[in-house]
Amino acid sequence: MEIFGAIEAGGTKFVCAVAGEGGGSLRTATIPTGDPDTTFAQVARFFAEAGDIGELAAIGVASFGPVGVDPHKSDYGRILATPKPHWEGTDMIARVKAFADVPVGIDTDVNAAALAEVAAGDGAVRQLAYVTVGTGIGVGLVSDGQPVHGIGHPEAGHILVRRHLAHDGFAGLCPFHGDCLEGLAAGPAVAAAWGLSPSHIPEEHPFWTVEADYLAQLCMTLFLSFAPERIVLGGGVMKQQRLIPLIRSRTVELLGGYLRALDSEEAMAQRIVAPACKEPSGLEGAYLLARQAAARR
Amino acid sequence: MEIFGAIEAGGTKFVCAVAGEGGGSLRTATIPTGDPDTTFAQVARFFAEAGDIGELAAIGVASFGPVGVDPHKSDYGRILATPKPHWEGTDMIARVKAFADVPVGIDTDVNAAALAEVAAGDGAVRQLAYVTVGTGIGVGLVSDGQPVHGIGHPEAGHILVRRHLAHDGFAGLCPFHGDCLEGLAAGPAVAAAWGLSPSHIPEEHPFWTVEADYLAQLCMTLFLSFAPERIVLGGGVMKQQRLIPLIRSRTVELLGGYLRALDSEEAMAQRIVAPACKEPSGLEGAYLLARQAAARR
Repeated sequence: MEIFGAIEAGGTKFVCAVAGEGGGSLRTATIPTGDPDTTFAQVARFFAEAGDIGELAAIGVASFGPVGVDPHKSDYGRILATPKPHWEGTDMIARVKAFADVPVGIDTDVNAAALAEVAAGDGAVRQLAYVTVGTGIGVGLVSDGQPVHGIGHPEAGHILVRRHLAHDGFAGLCPFHGDCLEGLAAGPAVAAAWGLSPSHIPEEHPFWTVEADYLAQLCMTLFLSFAPERIVLGGGVMKQQRLIPLIRSRTVELLGGYLRALDSEEAMAQRIVAPACKEPSGLEGAYLLARQAAARR
Repeated sequence: MEIFGAIEAGGTKFVCAVAGEGGGSLRTATIPTGDPDTTFAQVARFFAEAGDIGELAAIGVASFGPVGVDPHKSDYGRILATPKPHWEGTDMIARVKAFADVPVGIDTDVNAAALAEVAAGDGAVRQLAYVTVGTGIGVGLVSDGQPVHGIGHPEAGHILVRRHLAHDGFAGLCPFHGDCLEGLAAGPAVAAAWGLSPSHIPEEHPFWTVEADYLAQLCMTLFLSFAPERIVLGGGVMKQQRLIPLIRSRTVELLGGYLRALDSEEAMAQRIVAPACKEPSGLEGAYLLARQAAARR
C-alpha cells in the first residue's frame, strides 16, 4: 500500500501523520519542538516505524514561518529570520530527505491550511483566507485555487489595528511592532492584558468585545484587500465558540454597508466560518502538499 | 490593419484609444463622464471614426468599480452599488457590444493597471499591487500573473488606518466609513482637511508627513497580507514626487525590521515605485484586456 506523510511543523509541537490514498490519518504522533536535530530525529523515527503500514510516496510539510516558499530561490525550504532559537536557516526539505528519499512539498502552515479548506469546500470556493489565532496570529491565502506567494508569503497577523478603548493601557507584546494585531490579540497578549487565558474568561468580561473588534478589523482588511469568498478562523483562541458570531457582527458594522454582498449577519455567516476539515486544517494541507509533490515527480 | 480598442472608464472621464498590434495609442479621446447614454454615444462615435485606421479586433474596458468581474455571474460587466448617479446596474459590456460586434474584456481600472505594470516588468514580477491615489483610493492586485477576483474585487482603499496626531480634528470624508484610508487621504480629503490641493502645499506643511504615514500604512498592510514583489503608486495625488521617498521611509519604520527583505530604504526603493508604463497604466491594461478577449474568441 502507498502512503502519504504529513508534518505540521509548529513552534511548540510537530504533528506527524500518515494516510493512505483515501485520506484520513492512519497513525499520528505529536513531538514537542526542540532544536532541529532532536526534533527531526523523532520525526525520522516516526516515519521509519510507519514503514509497517505501507510504502511512503511523498511527504508534505506545513511549516511555521517565515520559510522560503519559492522553488526558484536558494532559501527554498529554509526557515528564515526567526526569534525561535536554533531554527533560523534550517533546511526543512533537506532534513526530511535525510531520512526519506521521497518528493517533499512545503508551504506555510496557514497556506497549507487554506489549501485544505478550499479542498474541503468541494470547488465552491477558490479564493480563501485561513486565519489562526493562537500563540501567534497567522494568515494563509489561496487565490484562484493556488497558495499566495510573492516577496515571501502572507504575514497578515502583524497588520496595524485601531486600539480598542477598553484596552487602552496595554502596550502589546509584539517584539517588532508592539501593538500590531498579533501583539494585541494573540493568546499570550490576551493572558498579559487580562491576566486570564481565553478559556477562563467570564462572559461579561470586556475581553470578548475587544478581541472580536481586533479580529473583525483583520476580517475587514482581508475582505477589502483580497476579496476572499470565505475567511476560516482556526487556532487555539478560536476554540472559544462565542467569538465567531461577535466577529461576524462587528465586521458587518465596520464595513458599514460598503460591500453589498457582506451587509448582513446572515450573509456574513456564510463568509466567516470555523474550519470545515475533519482533521486539523494544517495537517490536511500537509497531505495535499505531499500529493502535489508526488504528482510532480 | 487590425487594431485594439481601450476604454479607461473613470468617474470623471472616459479615455478611449486604439492601438495596432505593436501597442502605443494611435488615437486617443477624452470624454467627460456624463450619464451612460450620453457618455457611450460619444464612445461609440470615437470607435466608429477609428474605423479609418483599421479593423477593430477587440475592446478592453478598465472600469471604475464596483463592477462585476466574474464571467460566471449574472452581474458580469455591470456597475454594482455606487453612489454615482445613473450608473448603478449599467451593463458596460452590452454598451460596448451595442456599437462594436467584437470580443470585450473587462476588469477594474486598478486591476487592469496592475496587469499592465506586470507586463511592463518583463516577467521580473508576478505578484504586484497597483494603488491609485486621486479622487478616491483604489488598489488592484495581480497574483501569479492573474488579476485577483473573489467575492468581487479588491477595494483596499477603504481599509482602516491609524489616525495621525497632526490630523486629529478631521472627521474624514468617506460616506461609508468616515475616516478610512480613502476618507482621510484621497484628494478631496486632503483639500477638505488642509484647505489646499496637493499641488499647492508648501514643503514644510504637515500634510506631507500625514499623507505619507497613511499611504505607508496601506503599503505595510499590502506587504504583510499579500506579499507583493512590487507596489506601484499612481494617480493624481502621487504626481507630487516628494511623496514616494517619504512613503518608502515610513513603511520601513512601520515594518520595524519584521520582513527582512524590506528592512532598508534601498530595498524599499525597488519595491515601492512609480508607474513604469509609458501610457497611463489603466489604459495599457485595457489594451491587455482587449488582447486577452481576442485570444479567447
